[in-house]
Amino acid sequence: MKLRIINGPNLNLLGTREPGVYGSQTLADIMKLAQEHGEKQGVVVDWVQSNEEGGLVSAIQESRGSVDGLVLNPGAYTHTSLAIRDALQGVAIPCVEVHLSNIHAREGFRHVSMTAAACVGQICGFGPQSYLLGIDAVAGYLKKNG
Amino acid sequence: MKLRIINGPNLNLLGTREPGVYGSQTLADIMKLAQEHGEKQGVVVDWVQSNEEGGLVSAIQESRGSVDGLVLNPGAYTHTSLAIRDALQGVAIPCVEVHLSNIHAREGFRHVSMTAAACVGQICGFGPQSYLLGIDAVAGYLKKNG
Amino acid sequence: MKLRIINGPNLNLLGTREPGVYGSQTLADIMKLAQEHGEKQGVVVDWVQSNEEGGLVSAIQESRGSVDGLVLNPGAYTHTSLAIRDALQGVAIPCVEVHLSNIHAREGFRHVSMTAAACVGQICGFGPQSYLLGIDAVAGYLKKNG
Amino acid sequence: MKLRIINGPNLNLLGTREPGVYGSQTLADIMKLAQEHGEKQGVVVDWVQSNEEGGLVSAIQESRGSVDGLVLNPGAYTHTSLAIRDALQGVAIPCVEVHLSNIHAREGFRHVSMTAAACVGQICGFGPQSYLLGIDAVAGYLKKNG
Amino acid sequence: MKLRIINGPNLNLLGTREPGVYGSQTLADIMKLAQEHGEKQGVVVDWVQSNEEGGLVSAIQESRGSVDGLVLNPGAYTHTSLAIRDALQGVAIPCVEVHLSNIHAREGFRHVSMTAAACVGQICGFGPQSYLLGIDAVAGYLKKNG
Amino acid sequence: MKLRIINGPNLNLLGTREPGVYGSQTLADIMKLAQEHGEKQGVVVDWVQSNEEGGLVSAIQESRGSVDGLVLNPGAYTHTSLAIRDALQGVAIPCVEVHLSNIHAREGFRHVSMTAAACVGQICGFGPQSYLLGIDAVAGYLKKNG
Amino acid sequence: MKLRIINGPNLNLLGTREPGVYGSQTLADIMKLAQEHGEKQGVVVDWVQSNEEGGLVSAIQESRGSVDGLVLNPGAYTHTSLAIRDALQGVAIPCVEVHLSNIHAREGFRHVSMTAAACVGQICGFGPQSYLLGIDAVAGYLKKNG
Amino acid sequence: MKLRIINGPNLNLLGTREPGVYGSQTLADIMKLAQEHGEKQGVVVDWVQSNEEGGLVSAIQESRGSVDGLVLNPGAYTHTSLAIRDALQGVAIPCVEVHLSNIHAREGFRHVSMTAAACVGQICGFGPQSYLLGIDAVAGYLKKNG
Amino acid sequence: MKLRIINGPNLNLLGTREPGVYGSQTLADIMKLAQEHGEKQGVVVDWVQSNEEGGLVSAIQESRGSVDGLVLNPGAYTHTSLAIRDALQGVAIPCVEVHLSNIHAREGFRHVSMTAAACVGQICGFGPQSYLLGIDAVAGYLKKNG
Amino acid sequence: MKLRIINGPNLNLLGTREPGVYGSQTLADIMKLAQEHGEKQGVVVDWVQSNEEGGLVSAIQESRGSVDGLVLNPGAYTHTSLAIRDALQGVAIPCVEVHLSNIHAREGFRHVSMTAAACVGQICGFGPQSYLLGIDAVAGYLKKNG
Amino acid sequence: MKLRIINGPNLNLLGTREPGVYGSQTLADIMKLAQEHGEKQGVVVDWVQSNEEGGLVSAIQESRGSVDGLVLNPGAYTHTSLAIRDALQGVAIPCVEVHLSNIHAREGFRHVSMTAAACVGQICGFGPQSYLLGIDAVAGYLKKNG
Amino acid sequence: MKLRIINGPNLNLLGTREPGVYGSQTLADIMKLAQEHGEKQGVVVDWVQSNEEGGLVSAIQESRGSVDGLVLNPGAYTHTSLAIRDALQGVAIPCVEVHLSNIHAREGFRHVSMTAAACVGQICGFGPQSYLLGIDAVAGYLKKNG
Repeated sequence: MKLRIINGPNLNLLGTREPGVYGSQTLADIMKLAQEHGEKQGVVVDWVQSNEEGGLVSAIQESRGSVDGLVLNPGAYTHTSLAIRDALQGVAIPCVEVHLSNIHAREGFRHVSMTAAACVGQICGFGPQSYLLGIDAVAGYLKKNG
Repeated sequence: MKLRIINGPNLNLLGTREPGVYGSQTLADIMKLAQEHGEKQGVVVDWVQSNEEGGLVSAIQESRGSVDGLVLNPGAYTHTSLAIRDALQGVAIPCVEVHLSNIHAREGFRHVSMTAAACVGQICGFGPQSYLLGIDAVAGYLKKNG
Repeated sequence: MKLRIINGPNLNLLGTREPGVYGSQTLADIMKLAQEHGEKQGVVVDWVQSNEEGGLVSAIQESRGSVDGLVLNPGAYTHTSLAIRDALQGVAIPCVEVHLSNIHAREGFRHVSMTAAACVGQICGFGPQSYLLGIDAVAGYLKKNG
Repeated sequence: MKLRIINGPNLNLLGTREPGVYGSQTLADIMKLAQEHGEKQGVVVDWVQSNEEGGLVSAIQESRGSVDGLVLNPGAYTHTSLAIRDALQGVAIPCVEVHLSNIHAREGFRHVSMTAAACVGQICGFGPQSYLLGIDAVAGYLKKNG
Repeated sequence: MKLRIINGPNLNLLGTREPGVYGSQTLADIMKLAQEHGEKQGVVVDWVQSNEEGGLVSAIQESRGSVDGLVLNPGAYTHTSLAIRDALQGVAIPCVEVHLSNIHAREGFRHVSMTAAACVGQICGFGPQSYLLGIDAVAGYLKKNG
Repeated sequence: MKLRIINGPNLNLLGTREPGVYGSQTLADIMKLAQEHGEKQGVVVDWVQSNEEGGLVSAIQESRGSVDGLVLNPGAYTHTSLAIRDALQGVAIPCVEVHLSNIHAREGFRHVSMTAAACVGQICGFGPQSYLLGIDAVAGYLKKNG
Repeated sequence: MKLRIINGPNLNLLGTREPGVYGSQTLADIMKLAQEHGEKQGVVVDWVQSNEEGGLVSAIQESRGSVDGLVLNPGAYTHTSLAIRDALQGVAIPCVEVHLSNIHAREGFRHVSMTAAACVGQICGFGPQSYLLGIDAVAGYLKKNG
Repeated sequence: MKLRIINGPNLNLLGTREPGVYGSQTLADIMKLAQEHGEKQGVVVDWVQSNEEGGLVSAIQESRGSVDGLVLNPGAYTHTSLAIRDALQGVAIPCVEVHLSNIHAREGFRHVSMTAAACVGQICGFGPQSYLLGIDAVAGYLKKNG
Repeated sequence: MKLRIINGPNLNLLGTREPGVYGSQTLADIMKLAQEHGEKQGVVVDWVQSNEEGGLVSAIQESRGSVDGLVLNPGAYTHTSLAIRDALQGVAIPCVEVHLSNIHAREGFRHVSMTAAACVGQICGFGPQSYLLGIDAVAGYLKKNG
Repeated sequence: MKLRIINGPNLNLLGTREPGVYGSQTLADIMKLAQEHGEKQGVVVDWVQSNEEGGLVSAIQESRGSVDGLVLNPGAYTHTSLAIRDALQGVAIPCVEVHLSNIHAREGFRHVSMTAAACVGQICGFGPQSYLLGIDAVAGYLKKNG
Repeated sequence: MKLRIINGPNLNLLGTREPGVYGSQTLADIMKLAQEHGEKQGVVVDWVQSNEEGGLVSAIQESRGSVDGLVLNPGAYTHTSLAIRDALQGVAIPCVEVHLSNIHAREGFRHVSMTAAACVGQICGFGPQSYLLGIDAVAGYLKKNG
Repeated sequence: MKLRIINGPNLNLLGTREPGVYGSQTLADIMKLAQEHGEKQGVVVDWVQSNEEGGLVSAIQESRGSVDGLVLNPGAYTHTSLAIRDALQGVAIPCVEVHLSNIHAREGFRHVSMTAAACVGQICGFGPQSYLLGIDAVAGYLKKNG
């Protein structure tokens, strides 16, 4: 089983950006944790990051035929991007949306997700653990529906 | 480590109610799965269910001093209950909100959660697996912050 | 054919509460009328009343297997309760929503029903006669679809 | 006792239009049922249909002095027509609003009625039976208040 | 003169819940203060608390015939409960709504009261003193209108 | 100078409809007053009435070439009709909108006019005198801009 | 019969301010016209102007006992002032609201009047003639109701 | 193949009304162009115009059995008419909505179409050419789906 | 302890304005009651009134250094004045907002207070007694917070 | 005459993405059809596609000086992109917006176009034929205005 | 070149009011800085302050003929005052709106300015430096357009 | 001191795009002016431009460690981009938002800034001078806080 983690805008700042909110690990640190977590259950995990809305659209499109599932953190595009939503519906690869912070406890404009409607489900609020739970969730989904 | 799963209105219908949306396992079946899942990692899990908003408020209050963490599926009260939100803030026990279905892919009035703001995070869309991920999430949170 | 009338909050005050709006018969008086009306066409009618949202949810759930149809006056919960809506969708017993007063001619927040979407239809504005029309409506529905 | 049923736009298409939603009887068929239903209880029923908002306004106005009560299905004008509402308030003939389909279970813009506020009450969701219940309701109202 | 204080959800947590917002006295402490405050002016005060919306509806209904006035803190139900509003209008006992905190200085969804429209008036923001002022207000009202 | 008064839906009920709001003169009475009022200043006034939105559109169109100015009471279509607005802009005859009642003191949905934006100005609240003032206003406008 | 014209903010700029919208006569010019217009029908007219919301409130209050009617142009306060509305309701002197420009044809925030609800009626769009029509309207009203 | 063009309110003013926005050709001129355009590809085109909402509803209904497709310019009713939408859904004849002007570049209340949801598609902004493109579009649709 | 009562627009009309809503005592009568009420508990009370929003801002500013607490009835400015809110936050003198009528039971635009967020709390609905309760409330606050 | 077709996000998925909604032809297939359609009338057509909002902005900018007109399908950016709107206004090349599906018959957030206001017009709902009609429309526009 | 700085409500509290937000300099201190800053480039600066909305309207009106440009800090009236907006449009003196704090980073009701639309531009967020930048901006504007 | 000016979408069109709104200087011309303006006060200024939202996010991120302050003109992304807002909060470099035009005097959707909340302040409406004022503002901020 192969999974890809797709990270959106500003996640490359992790470890340096508002550590009170997002923690002090870098994105590479967290991705390494995620890969090790996947490995333990026989899941190969790779990852990409882009600050571009269209870059994320393309990353989703290019996942067709190369991976079995997606873990997506669309960052700030979560709340506005119809293009990412359309891309997810277009490729039809099972995807789990994850967020480091609890979006429901932040500013009002972060309470609604435009992209989660095209995902299997959403996980938010657990810091780096959100990615590990996301891997478990999409792996579990693939086993049940696969 | 002790956790309590608190289930809201109509979850006692599980296994019979709209199986296309919610699956065919009963609530007792799922709770048993959750308890076994907890047991494997040394976590004792008990559970309650109530159709009453105030019953859920009381169940949350009564958890103080008896459990270390909560997994809460507030059902339809998710979208309207300030009282449950206040109860969670009052008892200050770490709580994870879970939903069987992906609330972001259903009717508009189910896209926003009033209760998740008082939780560590939220997990939705994975059927019974949402509860297992919720246990992992709250257990992980307790280990890191405990 | 067996029907159950489920009455929501404050309907137990009938006969004493704002008679200008709701008339001077007690709930028991009206329920007796309804039972006699049912009897004439061979329909057995029983009834319950609860001030609790969750109590109404439970009353709906407990109707499965014991009655063929429901007449529901959700009172003030009509305009806010997703839990009652979910309960009706869960048990899938044909239900008719009734109101004594014409909700469209009262305060703006009473113009919309959250619960009627899960019913066969809605009847409002005819005082106690609303219940009798409700019995006719659900009986007619059961004959046609039963 | 004399009643008039006033039918709004597109109801002349009944029996041919979206039978899944509206059934397969023509308007004439249903009106005949309604007249027979009235006859059984000594109520004379006549009817009109118009696709025009102003035609309905005029039909309401012309009912003054000729009938004792109205059963009105304003069709799509239900949700927007202040002119029909004003006409009903102007003639002050008791009127019951009826709908074949359950307007609360359709598109959001059909959930609110502008015209029902000027009626005794509203009945919706029971197909052709809605008209029969409407006749019973307005007849009952006239007996009680007449 | 007899008054009843009716306390809503989570007020039983007082003294333990968010003391920065609500102070460190328990509900029993505050109710004792209120009773002593009443006693000084010849007013007998008793009290109840419920986490249930319907429980508060019933408590209001049961006050008919047994007390002359009500002091009501509906807690989180203040902002959503039409059922409590209906109950107050139904029993027609003079009632004063009180809040420990200043609801106008908290989250936006706490700025509007659905229940105060059915009360004589509202007092908020003075901690336990809100209850004492509430007793004075309802006593004053009863003397003037009694 | 020739003017036409165009009257909208339900104004033919005048003298019989809600006299508390609209007075007891019939439309013909008021139109006669208006014609006499015009005559005194050498203005010939004729008038039409229609319950139809499209009938009013046509009446406006047919005024081109036959009258110098319009006095328009669009009745309930005031608040919704883009077609009447377009007709007024299309014919470019100076028009004054009049209302018998003070639309700003009635229900909220009567506070805004869709049609007045295509008129010289609006006069409301003076009963039959509104028409006389309307004639003065349009006559004054024509003299100044004529 | 004595009337007072009360002019709101920026009307003292008339004749110099945006003549394309408001014309080139000064406020004193227009007030002189209004006084002459009144004189012809035996109505004594005086006038005041204030840029202050509270100044207009006071001017309305001070009119009690000294004039029979008011013509009020509240200027920009039309759309926001509850205090002027309360003052008009408090003194209960018949008042007609006037505007030089057609408020319905300007920016959206000028389409609604907060103050007109406390007036007999409103006249807008006729330049200085609006004041003359206002005098006629309030004089007519006083004759009919006086 | 037979098509009917149905024109809504005020389109009979074409050639005289706001030529800066709508051009200087009359409706008859444009309809002639459309018929010639149709003829070239073997399509017979007839047309009607009505200022009445209900007239358009009837015109749509009467097209059943007599034409294969519709080109509809609902004029100002585009933005408000549920009755036309219902008529289109009722007759189920393929229809293309056309507008002379670009509705997206005009006032905000013209940006949304209530009727287009019941059409195959919409074409706007090309002046008389919009009709020719509409004929091509509906003809193309009929060939593909016919 | 010294307190100042600051009264907003139209309160100088008290005793004459809408006595059904506001009672028949003049402002001076009520202020005398308030001063006597204060005196009994050793609190010196003075008062001012202004119809001006800016006058109230200045009155609040001038209270710095001269009084220990404020009782403020902002009248109609309650619902719109950011300037009064800023003044209260600027001077940081404890203030209690009072209203004679129950603002929650009046028009919708009176349900929300812009100024109360800068006060200790709010008291409304008790007629002149609101002022007495306001004095008790601010005196109690000052004793507790010293 | 030279035209450029600019395609937005996810249109490169055509032929594979939700064929029930978008058909089974690839973007290259459709572009070939469009080029052949142009050729027949002497119009040279080239095309680009980008998943990036900024890429579309740049593509529009780079069209200046190289093509005479644009056919633009902004995909999901239609509903949110002010930057594309600004680019179209900046380059001032005549542009026609096209959509494969009928945006008025899809989710509510797809009913409004932010970009069409900067175009000549819009065509939607005709599948690949939308592009051909778009070429005809812009060619027609250029002939008339060129 | 002569400029006037017009300061709105509560700015006279500067140096004492919420220094964390507004700094510790008094208004006189800042105005002195502004005058010295102007002097360096040959610009004479005077200033006024008023807590009154109407006082600001008058100050703007009185600037005609005496100064070449305005720097305006409308304080809390920024967000609500149509009267100030009208005054600025009336006098047509170039004006720059300034704010000490960044209004976009404060409460939601401070994000929009009603007055800036009648100014050349707006500067906010730089503490006392905002005034100096405002002087530079209006001076630059006058040089370019003067 | 080193500053970077970051320019958003379509600013590369400057000098050619809507000169009535934006002036006739190219972006390079303005940037040269800005650099010379900086030089005079010992500030080194460089600049970038991107049409991409993500490109602007990256340009902000890459400024960390290389410049002391930012001047940002986010163009059309001002009103929608949460990603740019997050980037500014992430890098924590003092930034001033600038706009050539007065956004408060343009279309309603340009009145609110999503990005300014993460800046020190905002300057708009002064054409190219906005950039020079922006340099002064950020330089002043850095001197005071540096």
